Amino acid sequence: MNLSTLSFDIANLQAAYASGVTVRAVIAEAKRRCASDTHHAFIHRLTDAEIEPFLARLDGVDPASLPLYGVPFALKDNIDLAHIPTTAGCPQFAYTPGESAFLIQQLLAAGAVPLGKTNLDQFATGLNGTRSPYGACQNAFNPAFVSGGSSSGSAVSVAKGWVSFSLGTDTAGSGRVPASFNNLVGLKPTIGLLSATGVVPACRTVDTVSIFALTAADAQAVLAVAAVPDEADAFSRKAEPFGVDFSAGPFRFGVPRAQDLAFFGNTAAHGLFEASIERLKALGGTAVEVDLTPFLEAARLLYEGPWVAERYVAIKDFIDAQPEAVFPPVRTIIEGGRGKTAADAFAASYRLKALKRVCDAVWKDIDCLLTPTAGTIYRIAEMQADPIRLNSNLGYYTNFMNLLDYSAVAVPAGMLTSGDAAGLPWGVTLGAPAHKDVPLLRLADRFHRAQALSLGATAALLADTPAIGEVPKSALGAGTVKVAVCG
Amino acid sequence: MNLSTLSFDIANLQAAYASGVTVRAVIAEAKRRCASDTHHAFIHRLTDAEIEPFLARLDGVDPASLPLYGVPFALKDNIDLAHIPTTAGCPQFAYTPGESAFLIQQLLAAGAVPLGKTNLDQFATGLNGTRSPYGACQNAFNPAFVSGGSSSGSAVSVAKGWVSFSLGTDTAGSGRVPASFNNLVGLKPTIGLLSATGVVPACRTVDTVSIFALTAADAQAVLAVAAVPDEADAFSRKAEPFGVDFSAGPFRFGVPRAQDLAFFGNTAAHGLFEASIERLKALGGTAVEVDLTPFLEAARLLYEGPWVAERYVAIKDFIDAQPEAVFPPVRTIIEGGRGKTAADAFAASYRLKALKRVCDAVWKDIDCLLTPTAGTIYRIAEMQADPIRLNSNLGYYTNFMNLLDYSAVAVPAGMLTSGDAAGLPWGVTLGAPAHKDVPLLRLADRFHRAQALSLGATAALLADTPAIGEVPKSALGAGTVKVAVCG
Repeated sequence: MNLSTLSFDIANLQAAYASGVTVRAVIAEAKRRCASDTHHAFIHRLTDAEIEPFLARLDGVDPASLPLYGVPFALKDNIDLAHIPTTAGCPQFAYTPGESAFLIQQLLAAGAVPLGKTNLDQFATGLNGTRSPYGACQNAFNPAFVSGGSSSGSAVSVAKGWVSFSLGTDTAGSGRVPASFNNLVGLKPTIGLLSATGVVPACRTVDTVSIFALTAADAQAVLAVAAVPDEADAFSRKAEPFGVDFSAGPFRFGVPRAQDLAFFGNTAAHGLFEASIERLKALGGTAVEVDLTPFLEAARLLYEGPWVAERYVAIKDFIDAQPEAVFPPVRTIIEGGRGKTAADAFAASYRLKALKRVCDAVWKDIDCLLTPTAGTIYRIAEMQADPIRLNSNLGYYTNFMNLLDYSAVAVPAGMLTSGDAAGLPWGVTLGAPAHKDVPLLRLADRFHRAQALSLGATAALLADTPAIGEVPKSALGAGTVKVAVCG
Repeated sequence: MNLSTLSFDIANLQAAYASGVTVRAVIAEAKRRCASDTHHAFIHRLTDAEIEPFLARLDGVDPASLPLYGVPFALKDNIDLAHIPTTAGCPQFAYTPGESAFLIQQLLAAGAVPLGKTNLDQFATGLNGTRSPYGACQNAFNPAFVSGGSSSGSAVSVAKGWVSFSLGTDTAGSGRVPASFNNLVGLKPTIGLLSATGVVPACRTVDTVSIFALTAADAQAVLAVAAVPDEADAFSRKAEPFGVDFSAGPFRFGVPRAQDLAFFGNTAAHGLFEASIERLKALGGTAVEVDLTPFLEAARLLYEGPWVAERYVAIKDFIDAQPEAVFPPVRTIIEGGRGKTAADAFAASYRLKALKRVCDAVWKDIDCLLTPTAGTIYRIAEMQADPIRLNSNLGYYTNFMNLLDYSAVAVPAGMLTSGDAAGLPWGVTLGAPAHKDVPLLRLADRFHRAQALSLGATAALLADTPAIGEVPKSALGAGTVKVAVCG
């Protein structure tokens, strides 16, 4: 077997292990690939000595006995890995945790092997990937373009085929926008399914850890291992039954009204979105026009409203003491949280509650919502020249999901074939209420496989990977339904 | 039938109507009784002309066809009754609503007849009843003592036998403390069961309308009519199945550790609490000691933390324009909300979330929690001399319930037989998770009937009223249980 061309999708890796390839050989190859990083994807690549304990615990273990045996992964550098500094993209903020984050512990116990801590928009504040003193992260397809953020390096390291999957975080869209820009599946799970213990908060009430993977099947495999309720995290929630699995069809999907769509001049993206609607119809979906107005109002609350004060609370002692250590646009945003009043916060929470009531009404009529993940993509130079406005454009379709407590999966929707960004990938997002992660992943997989695409920025073909299967036995549970019995 | 001595408990009224007594005769008698108010219970008693439309709609109606046919009630003057001014205890704030509050509309449709708008601690800010420009509301048993608040007049009007039931509101304990001080059942339902449309907010995220009644059966009858989900109120919730009905026993009830109990010198109250524990045991309960520390920390958040900013938001335009119109201690408290930051608000919400996780763990071991409703009671003169500290004492056991999203029923526990407050009633509260309102009411009824008590401050006997029955068919639903079916 030629390891240098081995696709790291999980099914392929498992086949390699079943055929006798050793975990040390695979991880050495993964390490070699990670070392080729010229995209500013990594803040820290683990040394041999740092990786060794994870390999040692797999010695003598049957590869088939662990769901993520020998699967290399990367994690955003706002998530703790024991004895490796966590920087959150700010070297002056760095600390070295004694323990790995609770959800990382689950992955390690399942046999996954960490290769590196990835670059990010500092303190997870941004959707573009340029806001880092470790360098502007470059798109996996074209280094002149942004990677998307804030989970920039996490997306690039998977897209390049260096690791099998990675972890990001997602408050405003940080787990979805980089997936779209790098031809990946990006799962933004139901808030609380993945423990936040050992994760640097952005906005604690609306943060979630996210998963980047080459396929929806891989995202599901990681979610099934990682979604363990955590007593120590007050925001941790148990997975609830997802109810009817609409993914096999027939299903009804929402599509924004024409006047609610924004592609910021990217006509090729608009074309891919229209093709995506037709693709979902061909899969058994009925399109239903949705008025996006209340969703977009909720989206604006995230940065215009008081939630930015959560970012300030998260690093209050640090930014008060060393404001100059914070990356300029990030500092402007986070310091803006200082002046918000509690009255602002409560008034906005009332508004959000009312908007959620309006938005939730759509689920009576549709199973899921289809939107672009981001309307367009920008060059790094463009983003750096206009860092607030262009970043805001990237969050147009993503900012409302966590505020409204929805689950979402970003999925590739084809390649841009014209315009400045020709040759770059583009993607859509499927959204649904909380706890619909599994049906969303299944529908995303069908949508993904209805296209002839490569995996990430690699030469491997999606068609060579198996379709998504049943949820592995896990904390996620199955699609149980509730039956009321009078008594 | 001698109407002047007719007990207005609902069962007795229904019997009177069945025997041919007319609604006009009953309401005339109720009006006569209300006119005797020397306790500062009412801000406005309805005139004949104002009552007439409610009587006219009952003309020719079969009394048995409406669950609250001809039942006189009073409502706290922060709840809208169409065409009657709502003052919230502040004449300069008054406005005249065109419509009745959504939940009042339900009661009117069920045949209930409003007799008056009741006095309150201004803007529902207080637990004692003295904070009103309409006069310090006097206890139904002894006018030298506080009525409790903020729903002061609502409690007194029921205790005196002037009306059958009344509505209050409860944020920190305003629906429970006055029940305890006036020998009533006070239901503080699960937040959201009773619509807040047409109610002046105190702290919108933790407010609920509450019900004062002579018996638990009457409180249940009112709840069953009033608990209608309201699309217009973003905080409205549907009743969920209450699960196992623990009220028939055997059940397990929590009791605070000795060091967590505070009676503020009232040894007679302490004795009644110990008797209450024994009474619950005799009803099939097993007492379980509970560490109240996290509950008490949550309680302190309500006034020491940012939630007071919600009170400021609720009347911001008014208090900014006319601060001198606000009653002195109320003004001090509400203006304190102006200076709280959004960072304070989020940090406190995180703390509350963590505390709730700890507090909720008790429900694994107990079905309900028994506490005093208030440790002691004060004279009006004492309260006016030390208005903040003594008020705070009254909320020691009540402030945490809404913050933690619990349901609670205050129930009489006997009369104080020694000390300064001898001759006054005293009560306990049974608390449980949200949606346990019905089992709590049933257990409260058993607890209540295990004592030989009069109804409120009237001469009528509890023993002459029927025990609580099944929940009337209503939005409340029954004690359904959930069964998971894999599919």
